Amino acid sequence: MQTWKTLSRHTVLDRGKFLRVEDHVVQLPSGQIIADWPWVITPDFVNVVAITQSGEYLIFRQTKYSLQGTSLATVGGYLEPGEDPLVAAKRELREETGYAAAQWIPIGKYAVDGNRGAGNAYFFLATSAHPVAAIDADDLEEQELLHLSRAEVEEALTAGEFKLLPWATIIALALRHEANLPTT
Amino acid sequence: MQTWKTLSRHTVLDRGKFLRVEDHVVQLPSGQIIADWPWVITPDFVNVVAITQSGEYLIFRQTKYSLQGTSLATVGGYLEPGEDPLVAAKRELREETGYAAAQWIPIGKYAVDGNRGAGNAYFFLATSAHPVAAIDADDLEEQELLHLSRAEVEEALTAGEFKLLPWATIIALALRHEANLPTT
Repeated sequence: MQTWKTLSRHTVLDRGKFLRVEDHVVQLPSGQIIADWPWVITPDFVNVVAITQSGEYLIFRQTKYSLQGTSLATVGGYLEPGEDPLVAAKRELREETGYAAAQWIPIGKYAVDGNRGAGNAYFFLATSAHPVAAIDADDLEEQELLHLSRAEVEEALTAGEFKLLPWATIIALALRHEANLPTT
Repeated sequence: MQTWKTLSRHTVLDRGKFLRVEDHVVQLPSGQIIADWPWVITPDFVNVVAITQSGEYLIFRQTKYSLQGTSLATVGGYLEPGEDPLVAAKRELREETGYAAAQWIPIGKYAVDGNRGAGNAYFFLATSAHPVAAIDADDLEEQELLHLSRAEVEEALTAGEFKLLPWATIIALALRHEANLPTT
């Protein structure tokens, strides 16, 4: 099974580091050429599910521009240009919650949009999280930090209370991974 | 907690039904105005995890332009303009696999991008799926239909073989839901 080839690309919209759109000339395995395949470039991002030393999940209640009302959410944010995903994950956890974590487990890298691109999500599970600093978030949204039990997180996921795709994904993956962690 | 208000919007890139980009003038709860918030409009889409009468998951191996190599994938596709998500889900299952299903369970609606929009994902679990027609897919990608056991799907999810964010999400959610279905 052959992947598509990018023959050429040019920018059709440049909004700086948050959004660029390109047109790609693409060749399919059949030889067919698509002359104007739209391609969206947005920054890669991290999400972190952090679990404290006493087993609580660090979860936000917050707003997001694309969502109605509030949603439950995880720690997360865009990678700085050239930043390593794990470094970004540790930075975001510290900035948004004031916590650091003893153990960091990568639990997935996923492309957001199969057709348009739109960056990659890097997911981390952080365990034995503990407070080390004051919260120092630069986010524009209001957010409230909650400590939820595993059962509360499971219930909220089932009820659709994590309303954004990457948040639902990392919560579902983190619950699977945490269930398989060695108990210490 | 207040959500942001859209004061006005205008189109900055129009590529028809597959991609439009707008600039929004947005007001934050603090009163702060953001004059040029980029907003991406791509079609809503469905994904379907279909499980056959004998308990096999209908899964594809396929390519996608944004992915390296092949990936495991679920049934899915864009909604036609004005199309109901469940109707689209049944249509995509039939077109892509030739199967229909006796029971359809909505297992989530998620916004793709909290900042930019980029449409919504509608997820369905379809059970007691059975062949009713020949495959009639209009997709540009090559794809191969597989019948996987629940254990194989769990293993593939853990191994990162579903490489696209919505596919990983619906698989993780479907596994949770299937485990709670009444046995018949």
